Amino acid sequence: MADKYKCAILGATGAVGQRFIQMLEGHPWFEVEALAASSRSAGKRYSEACKWMLEGDMPEEVARMKALDPANVKGADIAFSALPAEIAYDVEANLAKKIPVFSKAKSHRTDADVPVLVPEVNWEHMRLVDVQKKLRKTDGFITADPNCTTTQLLIALKPLEPYGIQSVIVTSMQALSGAGYPGVSGLDIEDNVLPFIRGEEEKVEYELNKVLGKLGKSSVTPAGIRVSASCNRVNVLDGHTECVVVGLRKSPGIGTIKKAMSQFKSKPQQLRLPTAPDQPLVVLNEECRPQPRKDRNRELGMSVTVGRVREDQVHSVKFVCVGHNTVRGAAGNGILNAEMFKALKVI
Amino acid sequence: MADKYKCAILGATGAVGQRFIQMLEGHPWFEVEALAASSRSAGKRYSEACKWMLEGDMPEEVARMKALDPANVKGADIAFSALPAEIAYDVEANLAKKIPVFSKAKSHRTDADVPVLVPEVNWEHMRLVDVQKKLRKTDGFITADPNCTTTQLLIALKPLEPYGIQSVIVTSMQALSGAGYPGVSGLDIEDNVLPFIRGEEEKVEYELNKVLGKLGKSSVTPAGIRVSASCNRVNVLDGHTECVVVGLRKSPGIGTIKKAMSQFKSKPQQLRLPTAPDQPLVVLNEECRPQPRKDRNRELGMSVTVGRVREDQVHSVKFVCVGHNTVRGAAGNGILNAEMFKALKVI
Amino acid sequence: MADKYKCAILGATGAVGQRFIQMLEGHPWFEVEALAASSRSAGKRYSEACKWMLEGDMPEEVARMKALDPANVKGADIAFSALPAEIAYDVEANLAKKIPVFSKAKSHRTDADVPVLVPEVNWEHMRLVDVQKKLRKTDGFITADPNCTTTQLLIALKPLEPYGIQSVIVTSMQALSGAGYPGVSGLDIEDNVLPFIRGEEEKVEYELNKVLGKLGKSSVTPAGIRVSASCNRVNVLDGHTECVVVGLRKSPGIGTIKKAMSQFKSKPQQLRLPTAPDQPLVVLNEECRPQPRKDRNRELGMSVTVGRVREDQVHSVKFVCVGHNTVRGAAGNGILNAEMFKALKVI
Amino acid sequence: MADKYKCAILGATGAVGQRFIQMLEGHPWFEVEALAASSRSAGKRYSEACKWMLEGDMPEEVARMKALDPANVKGADIAFSALPAEIAYDVEANLAKKIPVFSKAKSHRTDADVPVLVPEVNWEHMRLVDVQKKLRKTDGFITADPNCTTTQLLIALKPLEPYGIQSVIVTSMQALSGAGYPGVSGLDIEDNVLPFIRGEEEKVEYELNKVLGKLGKSSVTPAGIRVSASCNRVNVLDGHTECVVVGLRKSPGIGTIKKAMSQFKSKPQQLRLPTAPDQPLVVLNEECRPQPRKDRNRELGMSVTVGRVREDQVHSVKFVCVGHNTVRGAAGNGILNAEMFKALKVI
Repeated sequence: MADKYKCAILGATGAVGQRFIQMLEGHPWFEVEALAASSRSAGKRYSEACKWMLEGDMPEEVARMKALDPANVKGADIAFSALPAEIAYDVEANLAKKIPVFSKAKSHRTDADVPVLVPEVNWEHMRLVDVQKKLRKTDGFITADPNCTTTQLLIALKPLEPYGIQSVIVTSMQALSGAGYPGVSGLDIEDNVLPFIRGEEEKVEYELNKVLGKLGKSSVTPAGIRVSASCNRVNVLDGHTECVVVGLRKSPGIGTIKKAMSQFKSKPQQLRLPTAPDQPLVVLNEECRPQPRKDRNRELGMSVTVGRVREDQVHSVKFVCVGHNTVRGAAGNGILNAEMFKALKVI
Repeated sequence: MADKYKCAILGATGAVGQRFIQMLEGHPWFEVEALAASSRSAGKRYSEACKWMLEGDMPEEVARMKALDPANVKGADIAFSALPAEIAYDVEANLAKKIPVFSKAKSHRTDADVPVLVPEVNWEHMRLVDVQKKLRKTDGFITADPNCTTTQLLIALKPLEPYGIQSVIVTSMQALSGAGYPGVSGLDIEDNVLPFIRGEEEKVEYELNKVLGKLGKSSVTPAGIRVSASCNRVNVLDGHTECVVVGLRKSPGIGTIKKAMSQFKSKPQQLRLPTAPDQPLVVLNEECRPQPRKDRNRELGMSVTVGRVREDQVHSVKFVCVGHNTVRGAAGNGILNAEMFKALKVI
Repeated sequence: MADKYKCAILGATGAVGQRFIQMLEGHPWFEVEALAASSRSAGKRYSEACKWMLEGDMPEEVARMKALDPANVKGADIAFSALPAEIAYDVEANLAKKIPVFSKAKSHRTDADVPVLVPEVNWEHMRLVDVQKKLRKTDGFITADPNCTTTQLLIALKPLEPYGIQSVIVTSMQALSGAGYPGVSGLDIEDNVLPFIRGEEEKVEYELNKVLGKLGKSSVTPAGIRVSASCNRVNVLDGHTECVVVGLRKSPGIGTIKKAMSQFKSKPQQLRLPTAPDQPLVVLNEECRPQPRKDRNRELGMSVTVGRVREDQVHSVKFVCVGHNTVRGAAGNGILNAEMFKALKVI
Repeated sequence: MADKYKCAILGATGAVGQRFIQMLEGHPWFEVEALAASSRSAGKRYSEACKWMLEGDMPEEVARMKALDPANVKGADIAFSALPAEIAYDVEANLAKKIPVFSKAKSHRTDADVPVLVPEVNWEHMRLVDVQKKLRKTDGFITADPNCTTTQLLIALKPLEPYGIQSVIVTSMQALSGAGYPGVSGLDIEDNVLPFIRGEEEKVEYELNKVLGKLGKSSVTPAGIRVSASCNRVNVLDGHTECVVVGLRKSPGIGTIKKAMSQFKSKPQQLRLPTAPDQPLVVLNEECRPQPRKDRNRELGMSVTVGRVREDQVHSVKFVCVGHNTVRGAAGNGILNAEMFKALKVI
């Protein structure tokens, strides 16, 4: 199709980069035009530069492409970035002079003029890119995804917003793919739990408030929710599991909450975006669900699954949620963002 | 040694029963006299009745003993019970007519006249057995351990008691051995987390308050702490990991809390009981500790290891603790109980 | 579609039974009509009788069906059986009086008049059912699949037949799902290898020779290949990995062998059967492939993947093969058998 | 003790280096004097340079020592080396000018004048160091261990030598710690098998023949056994499992072989070396043993455990063996070597 947007994938060899490639295969609006990776990989064919970790084989047309240095990306209409934080800041800012950059890197999340977006949760924040373009005098712009742990949590929390979310206590059991590749050593995780993920708890606490915050003229006012996160790594390949306790100003009761969650739909569903799940939030009633292995791929990994919604003894309500961290929590969220910008003719 | 107490192990073939046998091998005060298991195993040699799961081989002298029906246990001075709940109630009550029964089963924990004991935490509650003996007109008595999740949590919380514990929010990542043998199917837990353990959350909420409660004339008044537990099974062999958020009436600050924890000693340490750890609570400062595989065997599994003690954004303090669920959380706690009763000449 | 064959699934709640249900969903020729399980499950809805282990949810129309006692199955045109061996013999023989039974159970594999079939390998043996029907005076018949370990091995060996297979030494690393559900305890397999699977090595040695044997008038003459199997259980969910050493009368060289393997096609491919893989045998050249997690689902689990094809220092050639044990090695092979019988108008 | 030998540990921060430190703690003859690691670690305290992977905490006195550049090691009487192959060759050769170097690195194994030693198997080869010292005009010398896979295999095979070993077909299922740290990514090994370990199969084939070879005047004549190895990585922390098929000139029968194995003792046992296991080879009769998790620590990891000894259908005999790859297969074997040299007054 002649008029598909040409996409550059930055950080194409990593765990999230591979998901971008997998999810863009056969995409109706976007096609992969350029692959950028570390300077070490630059110049090699993708099939040589990348150790493909996903099931099955890497798409053939991509295997043949050459990996570029991120600085040399040209000819793309938009870029998806899964660059390591240490190089993402400058590379993304440079590219954004010309084209829209949908970034999974954490580097720009705290910039006042960069929206952190989960399309179902705060699509209205996308207007912040207009401010950004004016301020930075760029043709393109940057949007950021929250980190994976926060993304799925936000989708689960959004239907509770009308009841006044005052506090969130979340304990995560996060999958290996969240640490990238090679990431966590088998010697560290086998028969073990790692009770610390650098920077993760701070990100949850900050990003949750930015995404649920109020969009002002040129920035977002954080929501002011007290958030306490305890982040752990467990021996699971994909899919983060989170035990969540929520304090509400006034709880409507468990029945109403479950109904609000399972009926939750938002802009991406109204727009029927290609990557949007029919049901962003699926509520299960089985006593031992959701489970990462069984629920992470619901709606191709774009749905968040919630279970064990029940009264809490200290705050208002508690539940468990599972989401696919490299799909819903990373590549899929970025693509959905781009689709929304296109559907609303912002790009 | 002629005057060692002769012990019966009830439920000898299970995960906890095996730990009792392992921990009593070479014990200075106690020796295994009788093994009781399900009626299916009764009459068989222990080596045939039991699939030994622990590292190394089963002790030879035990391997040769015959498994008895629990109803036929005779000649023991005391009994340790790891019976399944559905048969423990009657078997233990019967045996307690004659001899002390130190039980890991949940059956009698809610009896008003049965103390639920963690020697370092509420050793004074042991006096409740006098009430029990009078009421029940028995020569023996029953004491109960809390469930494994609560036991290690109680040891970690005890030093915080002076600061007024008001609420505890705990998310556990529990080991496979806590579900007994065969317990959890490999097909369920590989590459997965199970977010539900039947009855466990209720036990934590009830037992924590009973153990920290106030001993009255003939029963314990629960402590009145609001407790919220979320219990998960993860792919770890031994050692429960718990992320804990605590609300204190008045927090003394992290430094004081860490000091109180690492200096915590109690009755079993004063009495120098054979199975007592020198340090019931070890505080680590490394950013990614405790970990179940690396810390579960500290002091032969009798210490609880705490780490990541830090301010909490919603309540007062949060930390991670790891304990060996079948040692500190089961067999070891029961043996330590019996040692204390003997050292204080109650038995 | 009015003229789909109505199928009964025997042993419907187990690991293989669930695969049958999953693979028959939307099948163009077959539809599930009846579910039979143990007498314990009989009478319950399938959704209550079965703990669904596969990813995603169980098909809705199946969830609503009632599980029957195998003896009460009626109205089916054909049956697929994944019954436990101890009850399969009689149940299958009874059903086969009326309808064709495609069985994964081991019970009838050693019957002289029952063909053990891998459609790509020995489809000609299907004629044995005519003998069987005459001998047993039945309207239906029984065919058996080999066990999972042997099935994938046979597909990998078939292209080598022209070079005179004289000996096969196979060491398997088998997945958990091969032991059924709940099957292997997590406490046994975590951080471990189990070097024994009851009966498996004998099955490989016997069944390999029967499938590659010569069909005579009323039975199969075994092929006379010396087979040595060492079977191990490893901590993998699905997909058996096998290291194979083959002695050939005359080796044509590695290049020719790899070509023969990757070009291998057979009757199911010629007939374009719905479940037939385009390529029954895929040869990879990467140095560290095949791997069970990455290759087990090739062509929906129906292809066997081979790698590391190289000269052997003791015999002729060695290689590694991976196949999906509950798809290619069980349910999928049975369905492919039934498709072949239908396509060739035997049923 | 004033006259303990002062030891340098080269490659002290890695998986094998840590085992050297752990096994030398409290050793009666040897004490750690110097720790050498990569230039990146040089100058740091060991507690900072090393991520301790073993259970429990690192020994305190070692934690305080400074890591040196291997070129700067001084004042040691002997050295144990676990250096990466790429730097081991020169560093070891340099040190050996002055002191004995017991090396786990592969670099010098193929040198004609360097003995590859398993004390129980070919202790007589130690005389080769006299040749080496003359040829190289050094005061010290180098001895090498075989790789871990071969070491345990050699111990299992040695008692079969009288029956004429003609061929060995071995399929290994190797533990993660054999790949060093961080080594294998959790994303690669979880729910998976890796059927390739670079260089391993060639090492087994070469080293087995050198160790079982005949010592001549200035070199070893390889034994001439045809060896076929297939090496796999499985999700096990420690302990290699090997399925072995052996062709003997004349098999004495399974009973005799099992007896020969379980009665096997050699020089280290006669000399009662501190690290020598009482029984280098333990034969189990249980149908599902040995298992790496249950048997790897037998006699502190220095025994090899054998099971499933049975007739083979293609060659003579087959069995399974398990050994601790970083103890018996690495650090422990090196220490045992040094003990033997000391006991026999070669050092």
